[in-house]
Amino acid sequence: MASDIVTAAVLLIGDEILSGRTKDINAGFIAERLTELGIDLKEIRVVADEEPAIIEALNALRARYTYVFTTGGIGPTHDDITADAVANAFGVKLPIHPKVEADMRIHFADRLNEARLRMARVPEGGELFYAEGIIAPGFRIGNVFVMAGVPKIMQSMFAAIAPGLKTGPKVLSETILANAKEGDVGTPLGEIQKRHPETSIGSYPFQDERGHNTNLVIRARDPDELARVKAEVLAMLDQVHAEVPV
Amino acid sequence: MASDIVTAAVLLIGDEILSGRTKDINAGFIAERLTELGIDLKEIRVVADEEPAIIEALNALRARYTYVFTTGGIGPTHDDITADAVANAFGVKLPIHPKVEADMRIHFADRLNEARLRMARVPEGGELFYAEGIIAPGFRIGNVFVMAGVPKIMQSMFAAIAPGLKTGPKVLSETILANAKEGDVGTPLGEIQKRHPETSIGSYPFQDERGHNTNLVIRARDPDELARVKAEVLAMLDQVHAEVPV
Repeated sequence: MASDIVTAAVLLIGDEILSGRTKDINAGFIAERLTELGIDLKEIRVVADEEPAIIEALNALRARYTYVFTTGGIGPTHDDITADAVANAFGVKLPIHPKVEADMRIHFADRLNEARLRMARVPEGGELFYAEGIIAPGFRIGNVFVMAGVPKIMQSMFAAIAPGLKTGPKVLSETILANAKEGDVGTPLGEIQKRHPETSIGSYPFQDERGHNTNLVIRARDPDELARVKAEVLAMLDQVHAEVPV
Repeated sequence: MASDIVTAAVLLIGDEILSGRTKDINAGFIAERLTELGIDLKEIRVVADEEPAIIEALNALRARYTYVFTTGGIGPTHDDITADAVANAFGVKLPIHPKVEADMRIHFADRLNEARLRMARVPEGGELFYAEGIIAPGFRIGNVFVMAGVPKIMQSMFAAIAPGLKTGPKVLSETILANAKEGDVGTPLGEIQKRHPETSIGSYPFQDERGHNTNLVIRARDPDELARVKAEVLAMLDQVHAEVPV
């Protein structure tokens, strides 16, 4: 089954996320969609609007994962340098794409300027994709998909890309509210995990008005295995509740 | 001035962020606080609960930046492997810390178990810090600060760490609502940026009910330079508004 696994990384490009001014929601959106599609998101990186940082991250990630999805830095201003960085990472030129320029000439007419033409630059070999109603495209080159940073536009671009992605067996999950502290379930939970090394059991503590509580999340690709582990976790919780009154 | 600059990276450890189940708020919190303190956050990474991935990211980041802040993976369950990964990244042992164990024996009494004792493991040479009211500590080793993943606990740990951090000259910023499309300000904005290479001018498009609009963010360490660039940007916007009716 391991050879069927499709992996991905997300690369967010933007000083505004690193300064804390903008709270990113793109990574979470892509993470959820990839999980639904059956693609394992293995890594997220956020780098500044600096070409060497973008190139280094991109080359590390595209060598390691099936797909890389970038967001941000493809607009018309001087700080939009993602296309330059992608072209340099792949060692290709960054010409004005004739179809994009032609579309823009019609759409913008005499408001087409040097800044907007920057959005027509596509690395050689890049394939275009579009957000609904937006004239400037995203592009795919190799295993890298370069998308806009504005969430609504990015989401529409992702919808255009998604049907063409290779996907693997979906990871199914069950979330169980433990009604117990992590420290009280930790030891027996670890024993269940040891018996099921192929299944991932995650333990996520949180605090609510009643104090410390825990969500247990079981993830497996095989529904029977998922049901088996879930039954073991529920039996373990019964025992913990009997021993440690909530 | 460059030698005064203090840099940082954030490393989030957690499958639940990569699966999209949990939407991270820790990176944004740390980003905002670092900016306030005068520390430049240069990179954020999110990796899975897998020791090789954590070690590789940690070693890359700690070599490159003044500080690394990690969140997640220091609880009592089998999937909490951050302390193991940090110890291995630094090539040191991971013994039970006597003070933490002693505190836990008093606090948990007969509810101290194998799982909870995992939280007393601190890499050799690690220095402890605490969230208010929480018995299990975070720790610092070298330039790496290892914090909890639960936001409230992480924030309290960060408050404990912050006063001891080396800080640099703060980046001051001004945000200007352009009331113009990015494509209409792009060219003249790029010219202002060229005249002020030491100042960062960011352009952040967004969509609201009126359509496409743009925030311009000027960032500089020198308040006089910030004021100069702001005046140039405002003058440029006046001209754009005169030429391109909103």
